[in-house]
Amino acid sequence: MRGTIIYGPNDIRFEDRPDPVIAEPTDAIVRTVAACVCGSDLWRYRGIAEVTKPTPIGHEYVGIVEAVGSDVTTVKPGQFVVGGFLTSDNTCALCKVGAHANCLHGTGYDGCQAELIRVQNADGTLIATPELPDEAMIPNILALSDVMCTGWHAAVSAGVKPGSTVVVVGDGAVGLSGVLAAAELGAERIIAMSRHEDRQRLALEFGATEIVAERGDDGVERVKELTSGIGADSVLECVGTHDSVEQALRSARPGGMVGWVGVPHVADLPQRHMFWKNVGLRGGPAPVRAYLDHLLDRVWNGHIQPGKVFDLTLPLDQVAEAYAAMDERRSIKTMLIP
Amino acid sequence: MRGTIIYGPNDIRFEDRPDPVIAEPTDAIVRTVAACVCGSDLWRYRGIAEVTKPTPIGHEYVGIVEAVGSDVTTVKPGQFVVGGFLTSDNTCALCKVGAHANCLHGTGYDGCQAELIRVQNADGTLIATPELPDEAMIPNILALSDVMCTGWHAAVSAGVKPGSTVVVVGDGAVGLSGVLAAAELGAERIIAMSRHEDRQRLALEFGATEIVAERGDDGVERVKELTSGIGADSVLECVGTHDSVEQALRSARPGGMVGWVGVPHVADLPQRHMFWKNVGLRGGPAPVRAYLDHLLDRVWNGHIQPGKVFDLTLPLDQVAEAYAAMDERRSIKTMLIP
Repeated sequence: MRGTIIYGPNDIRFEDRPDPVIAEPTDAIVRTVAACVCGSDLWRYRGIAEVTKPTPIGHEYVGIVEAVGSDVTTVKPGQFVVGGFLTSDNTCALCKVGAHANCLHGTGYDGCQAELIRVQNADGTLIATPELPDEAMIPNILALSDVMCTGWHAAVSAGVKPGSTVVVVGDGAVGLSGVLAAAELGAERIIAMSRHEDRQRLALEFGATEIVAERGDDGVERVKELTSGIGADSVLECVGTHDSVEQALRSARPGGMVGWVGVPHVADLPQRHMFWKNVGLRGGPAPVRAYLDHLLDRVWNGHIQPGKVFDLTLPLDQVAEAYAAMDERRSIKTMLIP
Repeated sequence: MRGTIIYGPNDIRFEDRPDPVIAEPTDAIVRTVAACVCGSDLWRYRGIAEVTKPTPIGHEYVGIVEAVGSDVTTVKPGQFVVGGFLTSDNTCALCKVGAHANCLHGTGYDGCQAELIRVQNADGTLIATPELPDEAMIPNILALSDVMCTGWHAAVSAGVKPGSTVVVVGDGAVGLSGVLAAAELGAERIIAMSRHEDRQRLALEFGATEIVAERGDDGVERVKELTSGIGADSVLECVGTHDSVEQALRSARPGGMVGWVGVPHVADLPQRHMFWKNVGLRGGPAPVRAYLDHLLDRVWNGHIQPGKVFDLTLPLDQVAEAYAAMDERRSIKTMLIP
């Protein structure tokens, strides 16, 4: 088969690789129907995170089950499936309390921007759709593999509930998914911080009620103007930089909560924006499997269309161009079709 | 009247001061029936926090209303009252969402270790008891002024619920109150971290199911041994030092939550113990008024006895000895009677 390897900054190659095989009885092999590039993949592409050797890359996918190991009981060859960006057994002590991203037996993938994928912990990771989806449905399901569940995790971690006032920091695919999640959870007002017109438009379509283009002190000031001077009940931090974490903490009202899903590029968190203001912070990698059933239902019945974050589709063998398009912000998120 | 002034490290004096007066129509004057020394007062006593000039001190009290301003409607002279360590108007946008410690019009006190106290925002701060309490009840009500509500805030912030496994870091009056709060909120297991026999005993009396005397790496290891290797659902951080915050974060299971009420003597929080483990942190000064009605009911009907944290009672004019006793850990918490 062919799959994507990152060799270093700006060096993405689509190459022949050995077909993955069932190595454990709990494995499945999935033939990719669609995959995509994650904002977090760009950290390595941009040289911010190190690439020490050529590495298979990608962790978001949907596909058709090709084969399953002898212990797999919940999915079978021929089914259309989606799985999260980390595998989980869905049975360990941490999965039982909904912390699937920290599953005691969880694993990553040996590259999902590929024609075939080995999925470990298949029973605890994959969910099959009721039947084969039509083409228009595929991006919506693909979005559940990471960004929609990650946006949902931000909103849940930030305690969004009916009537909440919410700020979303970050207008990438995760931030936009966070807007959609906040709307689904009943937020009354959703302030999306965005400076890009195409992303602002999608934020509004997903349920944002206001757009704030300012950042830093001006952004905080503008949020306060919109929230009776006190800040938002819940803030979704969907970037991970020092500035965005500060932006998020400072946009929360006293007693408010920041849901934190931007992969952090900060070593420490500024206590001064937290304790005396009673502003909390909670989040991390999303426990996809904890949300997947529920969100797949909402997608399958047409209630939400998180796949709208995909504004460019390319053949999988043009994966290098997909990275370039996202890096240069020509695309919010790019879908890849083998 | 006479009141307590801190002049500097180890220098507490009980002196003549002007009687407080009704300065705003929303004020009340309270004649102190009991006051006490807070763990946070000791930061200045120990020279860790600076004292730039002689300063009236103390923020925990119960007493009899002596006089009220013309706008005060909910309490009247002769009633026995308790108020929180900060005043709150109970009507502003932040009080309305339960963030009373950050009330837009909140204030502190001009020293409560005194014979008379000016209470600003009297209607939003004070609650009167149904009738005058007997002597044995007084410490229980006094504990609501700070430590019991602060322990409750830690437990609520840490998301303690029926069936939770809880770790409490800190065996001072707040930590012990946190044990009691966790038990009231239905925790199934409560692991109290304590190295002092008298405090261990009270922790067990308040509902702790296990004691861990170890600290640091050994403490984390011991907590994990007691929690199927994963850590606690909820951790109450009731100290505020760098080491105790680390202890708390590292004692939480992935997906767990730290409730944080120890006045922080750290500038930054270690992200490495949080994001990838999905461990959240929430807390700050307790919104006393948000909890006071409910907790006063539990105290008044004899359901809880948080006043057991007071293991020494002294005349108010021996306040300097009260500080020394707490500083030297001869007393968990000292009550002062005028």
